[in-house]
Amino acid sequence: MSTKLRNRLDQAINAITPLDATLEPAARAHLDDLTKPKGSLGLLEDYAARLTLIAEGGAPGIDPARIYTIAGDHGVAKTGVSLFPQEVTRQMVANFLTGGAGINVLAKTGNIDVKVVDAGSAGGPYDEHPGLIQMKVAEGTENIAEGPAMTEEQCLQALLNGIELADKAAAEGLRALGTGEMGIANTTPSTALYCAYFDISPAEMTGPGTGLPAEGVSAKREIIRKALEVNAEAIDSQDPLRILTALGGYEIATLAGLIIGAAKNRLAVVVDGFISTAAFAAAWKLCPTVSDYAFFSHASAEPGHVKAVQAMQARPMLDLGLRLGEGTGAAIALYLLRCAANIYNDMATFSQAGVDAGSN
Amino acid sequence: MSTKLRNRLDQAINAITPLDATLEPAARAHLDDLTKPKGSLGLLEDYAARLTLIAEGGAPGIDPARIYTIAGDHGVAKTGVSLFPQEVTRQMVANFLTGGAGINVLAKTGNIDVKVVDAGSAGGPYDEHPGLIQMKVAEGTENIAEGPAMTEEQCLQALLNGIELADKAAAEGLRALGTGEMGIANTTPSTALYCAYFDISPAEMTGPGTGLPAEGVSAKREIIRKALEVNAEAIDSQDPLRILTALGGYEIATLAGLIIGAAKNRLAVVVDGFISTAAFAAAWKLCPTVSDYAFFSHASAEPGHVKAVQAMQARPMLDLGLRLGEGTGAAIALYLLRCAANIYNDMATFSQAGVDAGSN
Repeated sequence: MSTKLRNRLDQAINAITPLDATLEPAARAHLDDLTKPKGSLGLLEDYAARLTLIAEGGAPGIDPARIYTIAGDHGVAKTGVSLFPQEVTRQMVANFLTGGAGINVLAKTGNIDVKVVDAGSAGGPYDEHPGLIQMKVAEGTENIAEGPAMTEEQCLQALLNGIELADKAAAEGLRALGTGEMGIANTTPSTALYCAYFDISPAEMTGPGTGLPAEGVSAKREIIRKALEVNAEAIDSQDPLRILTALGGYEIATLAGLIIGAAKNRLAVVVDGFISTAAFAAAWKLCPTVSDYAFFSHASAEPGHVKAVQAMQARPMLDLGLRLGEGTGAAIALYLLRCAANIYNDMATFSQAGVDAGSN
Repeated sequence: MSTKLRNRLDQAINAITPLDATLEPAARAHLDDLTKPKGSLGLLEDYAARLTLIAEGGAPGIDPARIYTIAGDHGVAKTGVSLFPQEVTRQMVANFLTGGAGINVLAKTGNIDVKVVDAGSAGGPYDEHPGLIQMKVAEGTENIAEGPAMTEEQCLQALLNGIELADKAAAEGLRALGTGEMGIANTTPSTALYCAYFDISPAEMTGPGTGLPAEGVSAKREIIRKALEVNAEAIDSQDPLRILTALGGYEIATLAGLIIGAAKNRLAVVVDGFISTAAFAAAWKLCPTVSDYAFFSHASAEPGHVKAVQAMQARPMLDLGLRLGEGTGAAIALYLLRCAANIYNDMATFSQAGVDAGSN
């Protein structure tokens, strides 16, 4: 069974192709021909150029765009690594579905769709809801401080669920996806994943998450140290899938699959904050080409995030001190990508506008 | 005549009141009651709190918002400090009015209005156009490398024109304004203003503007040094108005007036990049309280900008390598403020959503 699932994952990964860099000069020439000094829109021009490559030389764009806010629970929550009780995952799913959460407000402001996904939260199945996709692999992970979070089969299932979400999104005509998550305690598995993938110590990586005081951060660091110890064999294997299985979570694995699936379908994918970046790290370890399709929305206020982002040579688009998750940073970043695409598509050229192009 | 104009400026300045800091705890308490970990929306929460104070404790908001893209020409352009000929100011005004420029695209993306203002561009009056406000004080400034840019009366007139724009905007029901500009060579007077207001040397402040090569930057630096030398008496007076008169420009002075007028009318004002920040510096030197109402949209790619911003203890919202002006950074920043306001107004509270507020 696990082999069959692994084969499906490999098929998806093998279907990912890098962007065609030979298309870049034409995109840059168009940007240089627009009525502005060359390069004066800075990173917006870089975003526009990359979106053009993602569109295989066609008009860049992100619309329609959708954020998947994916929920999962974590066995490690019972060790007290979060200020919030595990029930809050489920309560927040309800809040997402009634439109009261941060992601709802920011997505609505940006005219971006949101779908909520249950990847593996505790408390049984949810009632049906048009905004909710039920893909529960299990009722939360096992406690990573005592052993692996999941079985390999469960982890693969969650990855494939994410790929399926992206496949369906592409079939629906979506052009860009954003990652989001909800899962009480999920900065802990994310931190453990960063430590394992990038060989960073828990002392360097562990932060306050939703707002732990200093003693709480120390205790969390010890839990992560223990998780790395009991899962040392998986980590030492350097097998990205084994590491994700040992230290990840259902929402994290589903997001990693969503990122792989986005790249497979040539969709832009905007990575949210600390937890989404951990999912990206897993996807990137499985297939580095995913970075061609990915944009990093923001520098998380969680202190370890900058190290993880640097380890992948990525540059966050925004630095607003966000540390909420849910896809809130991705929602704002998608707006920046829309600005970039519109610049490319809608500005007049020097000749169209009768503007002197200057001596540069 | 000049005294009468100065009295009108002083009346406007005297009508500016600081924000009422006693309203902040209630705004923060509301933000803390929303379904998210405390402070987890970072700077968006700070923006929301300040917008609440600007709204005198009412619902924060920026809509409807408008950017004023204000054009002026500069005598110093003839010294070759820009890659573009002076005619481009006028050509770009035409481009703004037909909707082909960067500011048009970014404002439209953000559902923000744009009005173009002729504050003092060369080439005579413009044809009438519903998107153009004609407030020409003169056909461009004098060359600052040879003497003062304007007479004090001209500078006051431009300042009062900006205040009038803000007064009318407030009467129309606008809630937030953005600053934008167009004026070939206007990084030169802006740089000179920073040097004069903050006692920074031209060597530290002078940058490539629209894209000068290194030799061009050296020549520009010498022009700025000369401008500071021939206008030393005005600079030594430390009188903000005299300095603006000596080294500024019509679009810069009109923008300074717009910023003063926004504060007077309790409107949020989003300051665009290098040139707009020079206008802000003039407004701030005339009345430091304007900073209560101002948001700095972005860190300009023009290297001196960071020093100027630091001199005013301000923090730019975005760092996207922008150096176009026109109000392009302000358009994006207004979107961030809208996000902040919507968070404040539209998110559910813990009790509304039935979410456990956690132990923090």
